[in-house]
Amino acid sequence: MKPDKMKNLKVGIIQESFSKDQKENIEKIIAHIEKLAADKIELVLLSELHSIPYFCQTENVDHFELAEPIPGPITKKLSEVALQCQVVIVSSIFERRAPGIYHNTAVVFEKNGDIAGIYRKMHIPDDPGFYEKFYFTPGDLGFKPVQTSVGSLGVLVCWDQWFPEAARLMALNGADLLLYPTAIGWDIHEKNREENARQHEAWEIIQRSHSIANGLPVLVCNRVGTEMSEDGKNGIEFWGSSFIAGQQGELLVKAPMDKPSIIAYEIDLLKTETVRRIWPYLRDRRIDAYQGLLQRYLD
Amino acid sequence: MKPDKMKNLKVGIIQESFSKDQKENIEKIIAHIEKLAADKIELVLLSELHSIPYFCQTENVDHFELAEPIPGPITKKLSEVALQCQVVIVSSIFERRAPGIYHNTAVVFEKNGDIAGIYRKMHIPDDPGFYEKFYFTPGDLGFKPVQTSVGSLGVLVCWDQWFPEAARLMALNGADLLLYPTAIGWDIHEKNREENARQHEAWEIIQRSHSIANGLPVLVCNRVGTEMSEDGKNGIEFWGSSFIAGQQGELLVKAPMDKPSIIAYEIDLLKTETVRRIWPYLRDRRIDAYQGLLQRYLD
Repeated sequence: MKPDKMKNLKVGIIQESFSKDQKENIEKIIAHIEKLAADKIELVLLSELHSIPYFCQTENVDHFELAEPIPGPITKKLSEVALQCQVVIVSSIFERRAPGIYHNTAVVFEKNGDIAGIYRKMHIPDDPGFYEKFYFTPGDLGFKPVQTSVGSLGVLVCWDQWFPEAARLMALNGADLLLYPTAIGWDIHEKNREENARQHEAWEIIQRSHSIANGLPVLVCNRVGTEMSEDGKNGIEFWGSSFIAGQQGELLVKAPMDKPSIIAYEIDLLKTETVRRIWPYLRDRRIDAYQGLLQRYLD
Repeated sequence: MKPDKMKNLKVGIIQESFSKDQKENIEKIIAHIEKLAADKIELVLLSELHSIPYFCQTENVDHFELAEPIPGPITKKLSEVALQCQVVIVSSIFERRAPGIYHNTAVVFEKNGDIAGIYRKMHIPDDPGFYEKFYFTPGDLGFKPVQTSVGSLGVLVCWDQWFPEAARLMALNGADLLLYPTAIGWDIHEKNREENARQHEAWEIIQRSHSIANGLPVLVCNRVGTEMSEDGKNGIEFWGSSFIAGQQGELLVKAPMDKPSIIAYEIDLLKTETVRRIWPYLRDRRIDAYQGLLQRYLD
């Protein structure tokens, strides 16, 4: 996007809870998008794997049935909505790429309904209740922003948020915004409030730090509500708290932890250049001394 | 440091104001170190360029006279203090390496008074009131922790704090702790309180994010008090607020903004391994896709 096109951008974030009823999930999302578009929102961010339950709480081959190709039922529907509402949509699906190759993929729709581009989650977590390495082949598209009419979108997905490298690469590739569809919460059996608070605070801080390090606005859309595992023994309480941080990491707006919420906010995209003039980190990076970043460990 | 040696570590941070009277500055520091050592503190962190005024507010060739070789008067004195107090000291000096080559250098002293190692500031800032590129040749030692009897110390200096790459490389090189001697504050003419608050908050957040991304405790020692430029027209109000963050980025202790303060705190070094088991970011880094980090910009 050329500098003369940079401007204020009205963005929307849809923090929702999702059930096993995929039709209901998608209808809920569409109703929100329509309302946001009526308020002249130009860019809408959805949470990770919206439209389906967070199925990674167990390892079950049947769950691969939830995956769909691109284009597929969900992306076709969202494509229609993007066109109808004249809005850019950042969505997240379980992608069936080939038998045995499935990805956790963000799909970005242009205002005319075209798929502007996709991003396949690069960093894949795996811990109790989040068995993602079983389902998701690590992305192979790198950290490339998606070019849209509202800017160059540095879309990353959930676990990516813990890696400063991912945000930096999006910035170096010219992203105007960083966007994180995410699905993070607490194990319902974890009752240590101090530990829960530390996790939640760390999640917010690490993402705000990406704003600071790169002089970019960060948009985060998290799921909310509790989803149980199939056997009903375990569950995740998604902690909502979707937010937007400005180019200096300042918290601009934040959704509640415990209920669905829609954020509508106008971002000043021009501030990136102003901030990078006073905080010129990109000028001073010691690229001659960073080779070790390409190693697993320097032992 | 071998795992069986990892343990709780008592650390001290000396947040002080400094004047043009170098003798007074160093005596003040020594008195604090002696008290901390009496309280069984094993590691003391000093602020950036303690012992001399923050001379980078103007570009003046006479200021190079403040530099000293290693060993030199300040390091010899601190070496004696380290031995006498049986404490590891992380200090910061203006190093005269050769005619025309000066560095902003952290010098680490072992309990026996030996110099355990040095770190030469890698990222050099330059903005009004902080004309460091005039004085400091960028470091050429890379991001190597200093090995000491209390652990592997990932010492970085001030401007380095804004670069996630620096913290990551120290972690990959086996650091047990990240330590930042720093000298940061507000221009005394900047009266925009909101902007000042954003800067201060960003500074804290970015450093806490290094704890989170790497599962390491972070110790920060900042100057405090106002220092005027030579012509008396400008000045910097150093914002103190030295702090320690735990391995999840949680704020453990923090000094006030407006006065000298001594922090004494016991850190749990074992927590790094516990935290890295639940937050295994080092396991999941996409080192196959980070080549772009070695570029200035990917255009």
